Amino acid sequence: MVYDLIIIGGGPAGMTAGIYAARQKLKILLISKDFGGQMAKKAVAIENYPGFEEISGLDLIKRFEKHLRKQTIDIERDEVGKMKKIDNSFFIWTSNKNKFESKTVIIASGSDPRPLEVPGEKEFIGKGVSYCAVCDGPLFSGKEVAVIGGGNSGFETAQFLNSIAKKIYILEYGSEVKADSKNQEIVKKGGKTEIITNVLLKEIKGDTFVNSIVYQDRKTKEDKILSVEGIFVEIGSQPATSFIKDLVDFNEEDEIKIDPETCQTKTPGLFAAGDVTAGRFKQIVIAAGQGSKAALSVFDYLKNTK
Amino acid sequence: MVYDLIIIGGGPAGMTAGIYAARQKLKILLISKDFGGQMAKKAVAIENYPGFEEISGLDLIKRFEKHLRKQTIDIERDEVGKMKKIDNSFFIWTSNKNKFESKTVIIASGSDPRPLEVPGEKEFIGKGVSYCAVCDGPLFSGKEVAVIGGGNSGFETAQFLNSIAKKIYILEYGSEVKADSKNQEIVKKGGKTEIITNVLLKEIKGDTFVNSIVYQDRKTKEDKILSVEGIFVEIGSQPATSFIKDLVDFNEEDEIKIDPETCQTKTPGLFAAGDVTAGRFKQIVIAAGQGSKAALSVFDYLKNTK
Repeated sequence: MVYDLIIIGGGPAGMTAGIYAARQKLKILLISKDFGGQMAKKAVAIENYPGFEEISGLDLIKRFEKHLRKQTIDIERDEVGKMKKIDNSFFIWTSNKNKFESKTVIIASGSDPRPLEVPGEKEFIGKGVSYCAVCDGPLFSGKEVAVIGGGNSGFETAQFLNSIAKKIYILEYGSEVKADSKNQEIVKKGGKTEIITNVLLKEIKGDTFVNSIVYQDRKTKEDKILSVEGIFVEIGSQPATSFIKDLVDFNEEDEIKIDPETCQTKTPGLFAAGDVTAGRFKQIVIAAGQGSKAALSVFDYLKNTK
Repeated sequence: MVYDLIIIGGGPAGMTAGIYAARQKLKILLISKDFGGQMAKKAVAIENYPGFEEISGLDLIKRFEKHLRKQTIDIERDEVGKMKKIDNSFFIWTSNKNKFESKTVIIASGSDPRPLEVPGEKEFIGKGVSYCAVCDGPLFSGKEVAVIGGGNSGFETAQFLNSIAKKIYILEYGSEVKADSKNQEIVKKGGKTEIITNVLLKEIKGDTFVNSIVYQDRKTKEDKILSVEGIFVEIGSQPATSFIKDLVDFNEEDEIKIDPETCQTKTPGLFAAGDVTAGRFKQIVIAAGQGSKAALSVFDYLKNTK
């Protein structure tokens, strides 16, 4: 059996692509270990997916999944290990050693925020630890928070939090921050941010919610405690692209380059959507919009290659 | 009072931009005569906005509007008549002669149905000629009607009319219809629709109300008369951009050209999102995704021009 389309990934982009492609009567397989992508990690309410004033990540995933499963679509709960294009077909091998063939592929495998990997991090996700200031920032109105990471995304997070939080600390492992000077200048102007360098993070503490960070000052080797109620982790992300190799071009952050109008990669028949791509903004509704675009582009592609 | 952002339009793009921008604590005004944009005109249930398996256009608008109104945002129920940029400010005059000033603008004014421009069309608007099946369809109970245009919206209109009209003709200019196969199949199943291709429309005739269409069969060059009492026009749309003038560049279809990554137009501080822009695909979730992008770009812009 040759599929018209294989979708890799079950987050907002992949599920939306599935909903759209199924309505075009394509033979579709969606491969994903689980549903929801980054939505699954949001233990706090999502307030910016239009149509839902406030909904938990898990509830929104359930709604997407139910919507997807109403369509005619095969679903394989597995991970993709390898992908090759031979002539006009894509071949995909999964971790469970299954092999699938398809005329087109949409890569929607998403990306994961790079975790801190310190004690307390996992326990306090959704209880003070956040990987998305745009999503969760408003919950920290009037509070003292820390942003981990002194790169551009850390500084942009601090800028964003400037109108919300009472005080912001940026904690940087190195001896100086890496954000560009414009971002540094804006944060300075904001007047609420204190930068601490040479920070070796040791532990996140709290009771029901986060109340402090323990870190070592790498210069003095002294342990210190910082009282904060929110921790925003901004030490980069990891796009899930290990199986793709040279079928696509990547940007510096290992994200897939696409034509933003059609979601086309450099390989004909191969599309990508959502957080795995090189887009400037990562949001559920943006990923969903891209999934829709990618599916409609697949339909155009199949029509034109018939 | 100078706003940080004025959003022009209350469809999916404008409402999503409002939701996102308000969460960044910007001072925002949204100007729109009504809410919902083209969603308000949807004849059949919406089945492709992720999260809702099936919802009417009006219900989805209500959900978006409730979500928007939960934010801190000024709303002006009016139309924009004129817009100018003077130094670093945008000035907007409405039909009711109000004047507003803002540092940035998102144009999300959507598009209107494209008219047929044949004799009889204007005379019979509201007397058999309709651009909104959801609004006017019920008036044609038990009657024979024609839908002009064989794209998705034409077929969706035929689906909607299937439970109302006695017989439906879909008239298509091209040699084949363009609707996706799902839509074609549903219409076929409905059992009431006859598709006529190669139709060059010549005139709409009637006395008090429409009673027929005159068209040329483009293959045989023969003139034909079709007896119908209702005509639903579904041949695309015209972007609502009369107030913008030379602040943006347009494509051949009078849609606004933007950078698809940031929704930036050629004028700094001026952004556009949704069906008014030159995107390849027009979908609610794509428009919403663009609204989100535009709002996040406005935030970046304001940050960098402070």
